[in-house]
Amino acid sequence: MTQYASLPDDQLHLLDRYWRAANYLSVGQIYLMDNPLLREPLKPEHIKPRLLGHWGTTPGLNFIYAHLNRAIRQHDLDMIYICGPGHGGPGMVANTWLEGSYSEIYPQVSQDAQGMKTLFRQFSFPGGIPSHAAPETPGSINEGGELGYSLSHAFGAVFDNPSLIAACVIGDGEAETGPLASSWFGIKFLNAARDGAVLPILHLNGYKIANPTILGRSSDEDLLHLFRGYGYEPLIVSGHEPEKMHRQMAQTLEQALERIRHYQQQARSGEAAEELPRWPMIIMRSPKGWTGPQTVDSKKVEDFWRAHQVPVSSCREDDGHRQILEEWMRSYQPEDLFDEQGRLRPELAALAPEGDKRMGATPWANGGRLRRELNTPAIADYAVDVTSPGETQAESTAALGAYLAGIFQRNRDNFRLFGPDETASNRLSKVFDVTSRTWQEPVKPYDEQLAADGRVMEILSEHQCQGWLEGYLLTGRHGLFNCYEAFIHIVDSMFNQHAKWLKVTRKLPWREPISSLNYLLSSHVWRQDHNGYSHQDPGFIDHVVNKKADIVRVYLPPDANTLLCVADHCLKTWDRINVIVAGKQPAPQWLNLEAAQQHCAAGMGIWHWAGTVAEGEEPDVVMACAGDVPTMETLAAVDLLRDYFPDLRIQVVNVVDLMALQTAEQHPHGLSDEAFDAIFTADKPVIFAFHGYPSLIHRLTYPRNNHGNFHVRGFMEEGTTTTPFDMTVMNELDRFHLAQEAIVRTSSLQGRADAVLDELAEKIAEHHRYVREHGEDLPEVRGWKWPSAQGDGGAPE
Amino acid sequence: MTQYASLPDDQLHLLDRYWRAANYLSVGQIYLMDNPLLREPLKPEHIKPRLLGHWGTTPGLNFIYAHLNRAIRQHDLDMIYICGPGHGGPGMVANTWLEGSYSEIYPQVSQDAQGMKTLFRQFSFPGGIPSHAAPETPGSINEGGELGYSLSHAFGAVFDNPSLIAACVIGDGEAETGPLASSWFGIKFLNAARDGAVLPILHLNGYKIANPTILGRSSDEDLLHLFRGYGYEPLIVSGHEPEKMHRQMAQTLEQALERIRHYQQQARSGEAAEELPRWPMIIMRSPKGWTGPQTVDSKKVEDFWRAHQVPVSSCREDDGHRQILEEWMRSYQPEDLFDEQGRLRPELAALAPEGDKRMGATPWANGGRLRRELNTPAIADYAVDVTSPGETQAESTAALGAYLAGIFQRNRDNFRLFGPDETASNRLSKVFDVTSRTWQEPVKPYDEQLAADGRVMEILSEHQCQGWLEGYLLTGRHGLFNCYEAFIHIVDSMFNQHAKWLKVTRKLPWREPISSLNYLLSSHVWRQDHNGYSHQDPGFIDHVVNKKADIVRVYLPPDANTLLCVADHCLKTWDRINVIVAGKQPAPQWLNLEAAQQHCAAGMGIWHWAGTVAEGEEPDVVMACAGDVPTMETLAAVDLLRDYFPDLRIQVVNVVDLMALQTAEQHPHGLSDEAFDAIFTADKPVIFAFHGYPSLIHRLTYPRNNHGNFHVRGFMEEGTTTTPFDMTVMNELDRFHLAQEAIVRTSSLQGRADAVLDELAEKIAEHHRYVREHGEDLPEVRGWKWPSAQGDGGAPE
Repeated sequence: MTQYASLPDDQLHLLDRYWRAANYLSVGQIYLMDNPLLREPLKPEHIKPRLLGHWGTTPGLNFIYAHLNRAIRQHDLDMIYICGPGHGGPGMVANTWLEGSYSEIYPQVSQDAQGMKTLFRQFSFPGGIPSHAAPETPGSINEGGELGYSLSHAFGAVFDNPSLIAACVIGDGEAETGPLASSWFGIKFLNAARDGAVLPILHLNGYKIANPTILGRSSDEDLLHLFRGYGYEPLIVSGHEPEKMHRQMAQTLEQALERIRHYQQQARSGEAAEELPRWPMIIMRSPKGWTGPQTVDSKKVEDFWRAHQVPVSSCREDDGHRQILEEWMRSYQPEDLFDEQGRLRPELAALAPEGDKRMGATPWANGGRLRRELNTPAIADYAVDVTSPGETQAESTAALGAYLAGIFQRNRDNFRLFGPDETASNRLSKVFDVTSRTWQEPVKPYDEQLAADGRVMEILSEHQCQGWLEGYLLTGRHGLFNCYEAFIHIVDSMFNQHAKWLKVTRKLPWREPISSLNYLLSSHVWRQDHNGYSHQDPGFIDHVVNKKADIVRVYLPPDANTLLCVADHCLKTWDRINVIVAGKQPAPQWLNLEAAQQHCAAGMGIWHWAGTVAEGEEPDVVMACAGDVPTMETLAAVDLLRDYFPDLRIQVVNVVDLMALQTAEQHPHGLSDEAFDAIFTADKPVIFAFHGYPSLIHRLTYPRNNHGNFHVRGFMEEGTTTTPFDMTVMNELDRFHLAQEAIVRTSSLQGRADAVLDELAEKIAEHHRYVREHGEDLPEVRGWKWPSAQGDGGAPE
Repeated sequence: MTQYASLPDDQLHLLDRYWRAANYLSVGQIYLMDNPLLREPLKPEHIKPRLLGHWGTTPGLNFIYAHLNRAIRQHDLDMIYICGPGHGGPGMVANTWLEGSYSEIYPQVSQDAQGMKTLFRQFSFPGGIPSHAAPETPGSINEGGELGYSLSHAFGAVFDNPSLIAACVIGDGEAETGPLASSWFGIKFLNAARDGAVLPILHLNGYKIANPTILGRSSDEDLLHLFRGYGYEPLIVSGHEPEKMHRQMAQTLEQALERIRHYQQQARSGEAAEELPRWPMIIMRSPKGWTGPQTVDSKKVEDFWRAHQVPVSSCREDDGHRQILEEWMRSYQPEDLFDEQGRLRPELAALAPEGDKRMGATPWANGGRLRRELNTPAIADYAVDVTSPGETQAESTAALGAYLAGIFQRNRDNFRLFGPDETASNRLSKVFDVTSRTWQEPVKPYDEQLAADGRVMEILSEHQCQGWLEGYLLTGRHGLFNCYEAFIHIVDSMFNQHAKWLKVTRKLPWREPISSLNYLLSSHVWRQDHNGYSHQDPGFIDHVVNKKADIVRVYLPPDANTLLCVADHCLKTWDRINVIVAGKQPAPQWLNLEAAQQHCAAGMGIWHWAGTVAEGEEPDVVMACAGDVPTMETLAAVDLLRDYFPDLRIQVVNVVDLMALQTAEQHPHGLSDEAFDAIFTADKPVIFAFHGYPSLIHRLTYPRNNHGNFHVRGFMEEGTTTTPFDMTVMNELDRFHLAQEAIVRTSSLQGRADAVLDELAEKIAEHHRYVREHGEDLPEVRGWKWPSAQGDGGAPE
């Protein structure tokens, strides 16, 4: 093992002063409203009335930041600091203020005494800044409020960023979470030639909020085993004496960077590696609340969980506590750190990197600055040929797969597809004509579609797919996450946090827009008949629509061409979260490309060709649908109704863009009441066949005039392993139930439809008998085609 | 290391035949409708029209099952089989049929040729059974459809079950998930004296759906490191030759069981352990689709991902494929396994354990059989003294903590409290008067509330808390999960799966009811002003109400006594999921215990003491509320309105049980329309201050007569680090906005309230100024008390 040069004493002392400055500023933010430089003794009115913030992790974060600064300058690195313990916000803010990146963005928080006062006062203060490393914090792509995702973000950030090193600090609390535990696998997907490097720094403070941590109390031996087992070369830095710790950290960081350089140079020179890289990771043991008060009121604080938030409370009211605070702050010797004007002394300011090399100013942490437009192919090249509605059968997602292959061909370093081993299952396999799955381990002769430079990212962890994609987008690139519909709930909470991030960043003028987070949910509830009830859940879209209207979009394209239109649109948007739900099974195609484009642009519309209402005429009943299977069942119901009641005026409505159902006040895509009434009428029954839980349609339409006449069918939480059509029957979303409902709700049919209702009831009974006898659906259901596709007198346009 | 006796040849051959029988039955279930014993050559009509099922993992599951059977018999063990790869359903069904437990529950699936035909036909067949190891499968507590939770369930199952061994098979796909990756930490919480043992068997098949697995391709060395790092003693079984594998497996299992016995005997004899147990775990490498077709259509199948589902397709249509299937099935030599009547030959039947020792019959997998009622204390002993509404201040969850301490005292081995290091933060600390946190590692002198026999389970992983609790409940015990409200979304998907499980088990007569899964969500959206926006999310209850009405309940107790009533009720229920949302901050108390009991029993009601309407009189406006903070703001708004408009008739309504808002058809707790109208009126404006997203109230009330007059205020996705009252102002849920809304909506006030509206607007502006200046809320807000609590002429009852 190479011996790494020890840190010279003068450098060590400068570094230590820089660290003290960051610690001083961190404490000041938590406590002070005034007297930032302690030019007079602390008085009650200098102390904030409410003390909000997290000290425990902060000195460690500051220590690491200072050392990374040194490494950046020494080796001219591109580095991003991913702060897992985001609640250590004061540290991140302090460091960006010290290096100047903070004041460039927020000039009112200038690098002088007045600015320092503002810096302190604004922290965790109404009208000020959040207590965590939030979107408002320069250099941050990861708030860390909800723990578990920092390392996934770090990997996402360095994919296709060969020059970047993501230093990712992981708290020992966060390390207990599931998503973080599996994110260590990220190195298995890291290509040393094409990607940058992640340097995980597991920061063992020993305690969470009120408990020891599991890894904090593990032996060094177990820790070394664990991370070797994950494939890393773990390096330990441990102690509490600043001087020794500085020396250890500097040396260890050199060692880690040397190892990274070695693997990258080897891979990039084309030299064959003798084995897979064992990327370095650092385990840093340091006391929680390091350098803070050792005890308060005779209770242990430093190196204990009591240091987690505010180590000494009530400093406004309690003179003794205020005294502890003052001594603590003075222990950093502010006069040795800041000059008369409150500016960081020049020999310390010189320690920070310059310009965009500063971690608070790195463009990778403001990805929109680097974002290049996605180069998208013409969707016409992938459109399904539809001469007459229902004539063609196609797999919607297969068409999308071909389009995505076109995207891959045009965007060689700027786009990735993520999924939990479901890309082929979701029938996007055309992408494998032009790229492979990312796989760094040796490839066996019979392996298929695996390559070290593959661009399809598959790991059986929805958390990693989501976290990687977020990191990839936040650093300026594009992507799509394809997932079984039911299991996307696994990342509900990650979705929440990303939506919250976007909600805030959209209002920060200095944050440039990033590409939208796009979900393709396939293998959906109506086509999980083979996997059964555990795989049947359409509720993610309910969850999504809780978020701010200007951020979320939900699309339910009824066929392949509409899917292409929707996906092409979504991939070109920014600062949004788009959810697309689309099936993968062969299914009738309704719209040619031109019709699909018009339909998707409108968001919803009347399908005149399917209904029986002349333009301008009022219908007797509206048959509405959203989602591919509900659309097919609706059209099959209309087919039945047209046969039974040739004079019945049926208006068929299809909804692609769910947000268009809302009012214009609720959502930018919302239709005006006039436009809505023109489609759904003001007073006619609306039988709405919906992909998801019926309540969502009620929720989106309750302020509408005709809402009282909406009769929505959707998933009623009935499922099992059965046939596809039986799934719809179990939930009364099938053609027979829809036709029944239309008849019952239509006033002009009252009293003259009893025989038909009986016949439909018998159809349902027949289905039940047949399916249990034969194990497949009724031939008339399997063989059903829209009339015009049978050439028997339907009325296509 | 001890040498373990090798398996005698005769036993080996019997074991191998038993395994072949299970494999034969597994294949039969996937493929056959008839001719189960292959008494004639396979014809198209013997083959199911749709081939649905998963073969890949199944032979390995069968192999393990057979070996565990042997160990159970040999050592008279209590063992449960937790099948992570639940999609290997055919294997679990086959084994329970072989051992007889299946036919005892489902007599129509008898242990003979006719029963075998039924067994085959019903699998993945409409009206039959699901393709996964579902609730319908005897011995199962874990369907495994959604991967990631098997090992958490296993730990939950053995806590406080000293005699039980949970053999937990984990697929290498599942092992990539986050929840599973952190569940290895479970042994850190396992007490060898008090708890049973978990024997994880990591089953490395090498492939997922269409990909190699990460651990499947890891070296033995890395795997040994990894699991040593987690604290285990890993033992490897690896190969593909049945005979060698049987010998290895038998020996390894003996070694693992010996180690378990050793630790348990040591701990239970009171002997001081020299070190923490290194519990055994087994890594079993075997080919995916082991013993199945090696190639089909010249493509590799066995030991490859193509074996994942149905290795040879279209056997009805394709003669060659049917031939492969027949050869494959005959390779197990059915005539050597089953007699003329189709019964398992007696020398093989004798290999299965007997009675409740059979893993399909173990009562631990049907926990309701073992469930003892929770012994609950009288809530009167914990009630907060409330002589007049609003007079007392109390922390609701602190009162609950005292009650939970009473539960712990009365239920020493039957109840646990779970939480992600938030029990103290959620102010349930009274429980630490009677128990501690579970902690097996050495306890340091300054540690607090840690003990090896502690009963509060804290790990910073919501997934583990949920998974452990599920396992604990499913094996017949009681518990509560306390969590920050925002982060409970992390387990949205686990909630889904548990709700689905309950939905099915409730209809299975042989599944005895289990205790309800109870959530206490505290540190809620309105009181995360200090942690900021990432911690502010009330959407879990929206997610919950999508599930079947007979399973879910949501409670929003407005104060401590209502919280006690609700919690006491929930802990006594079964087969449900109860969500309780309650604050932890000091807050005014409204109801004495008697009033609280009446209010909670009704689910909602008019608070006559707070309104200004004589009984029988019609109000001008209804001020409704649900949730503690909305209740306080509503009462403060009423206080303002009573001052401004002494003649205004205000009806105050509080909702505790959210489900009571639904109609009686929608939910068993739903109020009739008459009762609803009596509370909310048929036509008066209702200003509804709600804890969560406003849409949920609309969703629950849209079929009601007066729905058009509901004006709901709630969380509008506006948040940051600020003051508590500012959080309500940002979302217009504060007293001033509520009073404004009431005035604007009340017809009798039109034209005579402009000055008051201006005054309220000025109040809001004053708040903004004050809070930004002082960093805390207006004194009049902080000091506000309900009039009767000020003794100034309010009208308490």
